[in-house]
Amino acid sequence: MAKNVFLPILLSFFLLPFSSLALTQDFCVANLLLSQTPAGYQCKPAAIVTANDFYLSGAIRPTTIQPFNISFVPAYGSYFPGINGLQLAGVRIFLGVNGVVPLHSIPRANEIMFVVRGTLNVGFITSTSNVVYTKTLSQGDTFLFPQGLVRFCYNVGDTTAEVFGVFNNQNPGIQITDYALFGNILPAEVVAKVTYLSVADVKSLKRFFGPRTLGA
Amino acid sequence: MAKNVFLPILLSFFLLPFSSLALTQDFCVANLLLSQTPAGYQCKPAAIVTANDFYLSGAIRPTTIQPFNISFVPAYGSYFPGINGLQLAGVRIFLGVNGVVPLHSIPRANEIMFVVRGTLNVGFITSTSNVVYTKTLSQGDTFLFPQGLVRFCYNVGDTTAEVFGVFNNQNPGIQITDYALFGNILPAEVVAKVTYLSVADVKSLKRFFGPRTLGA
Amino acid sequence: MAKNVFLPILLSFFLLPFSSLALTQDFCVANLLLSQTPAGYQCKPAAIVTANDFYLSGAIRPTTIQPFNISFVPAYGSYFPGINGLQLAGVRIFLGVNGVVPLHSIPRANEIMFVVRGTLNVGFITSTSNVVYTKTLSQGDTFLFPQGLVRFCYNVGDTTAEVFGVFNNQNPGIQITDYALFGNILPAEVVAKVTYLSVADVKSLKRFFGPRTLGA
Amino acid sequence: MAKNVFLPILLSFFLLPFSSLALTQDFCVANLLLSQTPAGYQCKPAAIVTANDFYLSGAIRPTTIQPFNISFVPAYGSYFPGINGLQLAGVRIFLGVNGVVPLHSIPRANEIMFVVRGTLNVGFITSTSNVVYTKTLSQGDTFLFPQGLVRFCYNVGDTTAEVFGVFNNQNPGIQITDYALFGNILPAEVVAKVTYLSVADVKSLKRFFGPRTLGA
Amino acid sequence: MAKNVFLPILLSFFLLPFSSLALTQDFCVANLLLSQTPAGYQCKPAAIVTANDFYLSGAIRPTTIQPFNISFVPAYGSYFPGINGLQLAGVRIFLGVNGVVPLHSIPRANEIMFVVRGTLNVGFITSTSNVVYTKTLSQGDTFLFPQGLVRFCYNVGDTTAEVFGVFNNQNPGIQITDYALFGNILPAEVVAKVTYLSVADVKSLKRFFGPRTLGA
Amino acid sequence: MAKNVFLPILLSFFLLPFSSLALTQDFCVANLLLSQTPAGYQCKPAAIVTANDFYLSGAIRPTTIQPFNISFVPAYGSYFPGINGLQLAGVRIFLGVNGVVPLHSIPRANEIMFVVRGTLNVGFITSTSNVVYTKTLSQGDTFLFPQGLVRFCYNVGDTTAEVFGVFNNQNPGIQITDYALFGNILPAEVVAKVTYLSVADVKSLKRFFGPRTLGA
Repeated sequence: MAKNVFLPILLSFFLLPFSSLALTQDFCVANLLLSQTPAGYQCKPAAIVTANDFYLSGAIRPTTIQPFNISFVPAYGSYFPGINGLQLAGVRIFLGVNGVVPLHSIPRANEIMFVVRGTLNVGFITSTSNVVYTKTLSQGDTFLFPQGLVRFCYNVGDTTAEVFGVFNNQNPGIQITDYALFGNILPAEVVAKVTYLSVADVKSLKRFFGPRTLGA
Repeated sequence: MAKNVFLPILLSFFLLPFSSLALTQDFCVANLLLSQTPAGYQCKPAAIVTANDFYLSGAIRPTTIQPFNISFVPAYGSYFPGINGLQLAGVRIFLGVNGVVPLHSIPRANEIMFVVRGTLNVGFITSTSNVVYTKTLSQGDTFLFPQGLVRFCYNVGDTTAEVFGVFNNQNPGIQITDYALFGNILPAEVVAKVTYLSVADVKSLKRFFGPRTLGA
Repeated sequence: MAKNVFLPILLSFFLLPFSSLALTQDFCVANLLLSQTPAGYQCKPAAIVTANDFYLSGAIRPTTIQPFNISFVPAYGSYFPGINGLQLAGVRIFLGVNGVVPLHSIPRANEIMFVVRGTLNVGFITSTSNVVYTKTLSQGDTFLFPQGLVRFCYNVGDTTAEVFGVFNNQNPGIQITDYALFGNILPAEVVAKVTYLSVADVKSLKRFFGPRTLGA
Repeated sequence: MAKNVFLPILLSFFLLPFSSLALTQDFCVANLLLSQTPAGYQCKPAAIVTANDFYLSGAIRPTTIQPFNISFVPAYGSYFPGINGLQLAGVRIFLGVNGVVPLHSIPRANEIMFVVRGTLNVGFITSTSNVVYTKTLSQGDTFLFPQGLVRFCYNVGDTTAEVFGVFNNQNPGIQITDYALFGNILPAEVVAKVTYLSVADVKSLKRFFGPRTLGA
Repeated sequence: MAKNVFLPILLSFFLLPFSSLALTQDFCVANLLLSQTPAGYQCKPAAIVTANDFYLSGAIRPTTIQPFNISFVPAYGSYFPGINGLQLAGVRIFLGVNGVVPLHSIPRANEIMFVVRGTLNVGFITSTSNVVYTKTLSQGDTFLFPQGLVRFCYNVGDTTAEVFGVFNNQNPGIQITDYALFGNILPAEVVAKVTYLSVADVKSLKRFFGPRTLGA
Repeated sequence: MAKNVFLPILLSFFLLPFSSLALTQDFCVANLLLSQTPAGYQCKPAAIVTANDFYLSGAIRPTTIQPFNISFVPAYGSYFPGINGLQLAGVRIFLGVNGVVPLHSIPRANEIMFVVRGTLNVGFITSTSNVVYTKTLSQGDTFLFPQGLVRFCYNVGDTTAEVFGVFNNQNPGIQITDYALFGNILPAEVVAKVTYLSVADVKSLKRFFGPRTLGA
C-alpha cells in the first residue's frame, strides 16, 4: 500500500526541480518542461548539463518555405536550450536563387547579419521618417538591423545564399508583414480600414497568404 | 583685443555644460543642444531645472492628420525634456469620428493605453502565429500592447475619442506600416518583390501615401 | 488500485505548468498561482491567453479611503495579469473634493501622471537638497515624478478629480509616509528616536494612523 | 592676429574631449567637468587614468553632523571618479555614542551593510503593508535594505560604531524624511495638508529642521 | 483509501509554492528548493519571510584554504537568501600573514572592496592592453575592480587582514586562474596547446593544483 | 576684426554636435571624436548617417598574429560605428592550420560562435567547479560561451578555419590569459606570488610573451 502512495510522491519530487545544490551558475540551460518566466525558461540543474546543450549541429537541413524559396534554422528556443538567459539568439538562413526573406520586423532585438556565401540585397526602413538604408552584400560582409524596424533581404546572385544572423535577445520574435496583415482572422473590412487598402485587395491577399481567412 | 579673443572663449565655456557641482541627480533633464548618447540626451545642470521641465500643458492643440482624422501630442523628446532618462514616454491621441490610427508598430517599447473618452476598437497581432487580440474600449478602460507588434486603433463611436498612451522607453518610435512600405524612396519593383504585392498595386499605393515616390 | 495512484500523478501534472509548446512569446501573462521570480510572475501558457488578459475595465469602482477622500484602481498585479513582464504598471486615482493623496514615495519606478479631469496641486521633493518642484495641473496636463522621491497630490478644484498614473515597473510599490511611520508595530520610542518627533506626538499619530499600534 | 584667433580654437579643442584612441574600455572613469548623461558621467580618456581613480583613502575624516552625531564619507560622485558606470556606490558611516542615521530612504538602489565595529539597531519598513524587519547588529554582521523603503540605524553600544554600506547604483541618492518634510520651502499649511500633522507641529518641526523655512 | 491518495496530493500542494496572496513585493527572498531562473531563485511567500532572511551573522568562521592561507564567507546563495533579486552580493575575506587571494576574475560583476583591517597589495590587469593598476591598501581604504578582469590581493602586513567585497550581481562567480587551468580534466597536451606552457610544466602544475588530473 | 572673432565661434559650433533636430532615433551611430559615456559613444546626427555606417566589408584582410597563426577583424569600435548602442558586437576569426585562439576570457559578454568553414576544437571552463565543456565543431555548427569564463579554440583540420563570433555587448573586451599574466609590467616576483608558478618560470614566460617585461 505504502509503495503505491510513495510512488506518486517520489514522482512529484522528480518532477519538481531541485537545484538547491547548484549554488553557483555560469549559465541557465532551459528546462523546456516548466513554465517560462519574464526572463526566460527555468534552469536545468547544472549536474545534468552537457556540452551538447551549448551546441547546435550544422547538419540540420530545414524544409524550404514557399513562395519565398528560403529555409532557416533557429538557434534558440527548443533548438538550443543553452542559449536561455544569455541575451543572444541566432538564425541560419538559406535563400535559394531568387529567394526572398519578405518584409518583416524583429520585435525584441537588434540584429547583426554575416554573409556566409552568396550575394544579397538587404535594407531597413526607419520609423517616423521612412528613410531607407540599403546595401548589396557579398561573402564575408556584415550588416546591422536596428530593433523593430521593417527590413528585407533577397538573393540577387546565381547561387544559394547563406547568412547567419544574431540577435541580442534569446527570444527575438519575427513578424512577417504579409502574414501579420493577411494571414490572421480579422475580417477583410477591418484590415482594409486600418491599412487603407481596398477591401477587394485585402480579400485577394488573404486568399494568397491566409490559411485562416474569414469572410473572404 | 583681448576682449575680442576672450568673448569666444567665454562662449565656448557657456556652450560646454559644466555640471560638476550637481553631484547628486534625481533626474536628467535633457539638454537638447548637445549630442545624444545611447541612453538619451545629456543632462542640463540641475541648477537651471524648473517645475516646467516636468510639465506638459494639456492646452497644446495639434493639427489633424489626414486621411486618418487623428491628431496627437507626444509627451517626450523636445516636447518634454524632463522625461529624459526616466524610461517612460507618453502620447495623447485624439481620434475624430471615424478616425483611425493606422496599422503601426512601436519598435522600442510596450504600451499601456487609457481611454479618456469615446469608444474605440483596438488590437494587436502576435509574431510568428499571427493571433489577433482585439477589444472594444470605452471611457476609463485600459489596454496593453506588447513591444514591436503591429497594432491598430479606430474610433467606433459618434464623438471624438481621446486616449493617453504610455511607453516604457523615452524614445519609443513609431512605424506606420503604410508609410514605411509606400512612403519611402525604394523603387516599386523592390517593394513588390519583398511584399508580394503587384508592382501596379505598389505604384498605386505609393501615389496615395508617398510624398517621396520614385519611379512611379 | 492503479487509478487511485494515477490520480495524484495526473493532478501533479495538471498543477505543474507545461508551456513547452509555446516556444515563441510576445508576452508573459502572469500565472498568479505559481511562485514569483525576481523578474515577475511565471507565464501562463500562450494557448489560454485571451484579449481580456490585456484589458482592464473602466467600470471598476473602488471604495473611498478615509480620511483621504480618494479611491484608486491599480492596473497591475492580480488586477491585470497581462502587465506581467511589460515593465509598466498603471493606476487610476479619483480624488473627491479636498481629497489628498498623502505624502508618499514609489520605491521602484518613475511616474508619468495624466489629468483626466479636475484641478490638482502636485509636487515632489528632491533628495539631499530638498528642492520642491510643484505645479497646479488641469485637465489634459501631464506631470513627471522621479523614482523614490516623496511626492504629493491634492484636489484644489470644486469637483472630483481623476488622474491616470503610469510607472516603468510592473510592481512599483507605494509607501505612504504616515502609514510607514505611524502604522507599524515599532514602539513609539523607536519611531521618536529616528524621526526626532516627541514620543507624545508619535503616540498621538499612532492612534490616528495605526491599526497595529503597540505600547501606545 | 592669427595667433589670437587660433588660441580660442585650440582651447576649444582642449576642452572637447578626444578619446577616439581609447577604443577598448574596461572602465569609464568620470570626467567631472563635462555634462552628465542618464547613464552617468562621460569618461576620461583611458590614457590619463591612474590607480588613484579606483582608490579612496580611509584617512578622510568627515565632520560630524548634529543633532544626529554621525559622519559619513561617500564612495561615489566627486569623491570616487572610478566608480562611474560600475553600478556600485559605497558609503562609510560613523555613528558616535547615541548616534542616529535618521529615518530615510535610498531612492535608486538596494543596500548591503557591513558592520566594521560597534553595535547597532537597524530596520526597514515595507511598502503597502508597513511590516517592520529589524535586527541588532554587531561587528562582522551584514544586513540588507531593499530599494526605496524607509529605513533607520542607530548606535546602541557604548562606543562609536562604523558601518560600510554598498549600493547597486553609482548615484543612489538619500532622502532623509525629516529634511524632506520640514527642510523645504513648502508653506507649513501644504506640509500639514499632505501629512495630516497639525500646522502648529509642522511649524515647530520646520524651526528645528529647516534652514529654509517659509511663512513659519 | 482516500486518505492515502490525498496525502501525496496535499504534499504536492505543499511543495508547489502558492504566493498569489503576496501581490506586492519589496523583495524576493530565495526559495532554495525550487528551480532557478535566469534572474535568480524563485521567491518565498512574503508571509514566511523574517528579518533573519536579510541578516548574515559575523560569527560564521570559515575554514582556512591552503596553500593560500585565506578563508572567506560568501554573502549570497544559500548563505543569504534575502540577497536574491537585489543585484548585490558580498564576501568577507580573511587573509592570514602572507595570505594570497590568487589571481582570479569575477565573471559577472564589478567589485568594491573595503579594508576592515590590515595592509594589502591589490591590483587588476586591463583587457587588450594589459595595463596594471595596483595599490597598497590600509584599514578604511576602498578599491574598485572592474568586471571580468584578472585581479589579485595579498597580505603585506604582520597581522591577519580582513576585507569586505561587494559585487553588483547576486551570483558574481569566481574563476581562480590556477584552478581553471590546472584543476580541470583537460589533458595536459590541450592545456599546453592553448597556454603555450610546456607539457611538462602543465603536468607539474596539474599535480599541484588538480584534484582531478588526467593523464599526468 | 569681427570676422576673426566669429570664425572660432563658428568652429566651436561646428565642433559641438547639434542633433536637436533628430528627435527620433532608431540608432545611435558613434561619433568617435567625442567622449565616451558608460553606455557607449555619443551619437552622430542622424542626417549624416549612411548605409555604410551599418556595413562592414568582408574584404578586410587582417595581418596574421604569431605565434598563434590567427587573424581577426573586429566588428565593433572604430571598425563599425553603427554598432554603437545596439548591445551587439561581432568578430571574424581566421585560424591557419594549427592556429590557436589561446586561452582567454571575454569580460563583458556572452558569445555565440558560428563555423563558416573548417574544423575546430572549442571549450570553456566553469567558475568554482572548473568543469570543462568541450566540442569538435565543423562547418555550419554553432557553439555558446558564457560571459567571463576562460575559453579556447584551435584548428584541428587540414585547412584554414573561419568563424564568426557575436557578443551581447558593443564593447566585449578580450583578456588573453598569457598576455595578462606575462605581458604586463608587474615584477616576476609578484606574478609568481599570485599564480604559484616559480619565479624562474614566470621570468621565462615574460621573455616569451612580454613586450614590456620588467626585472627579467
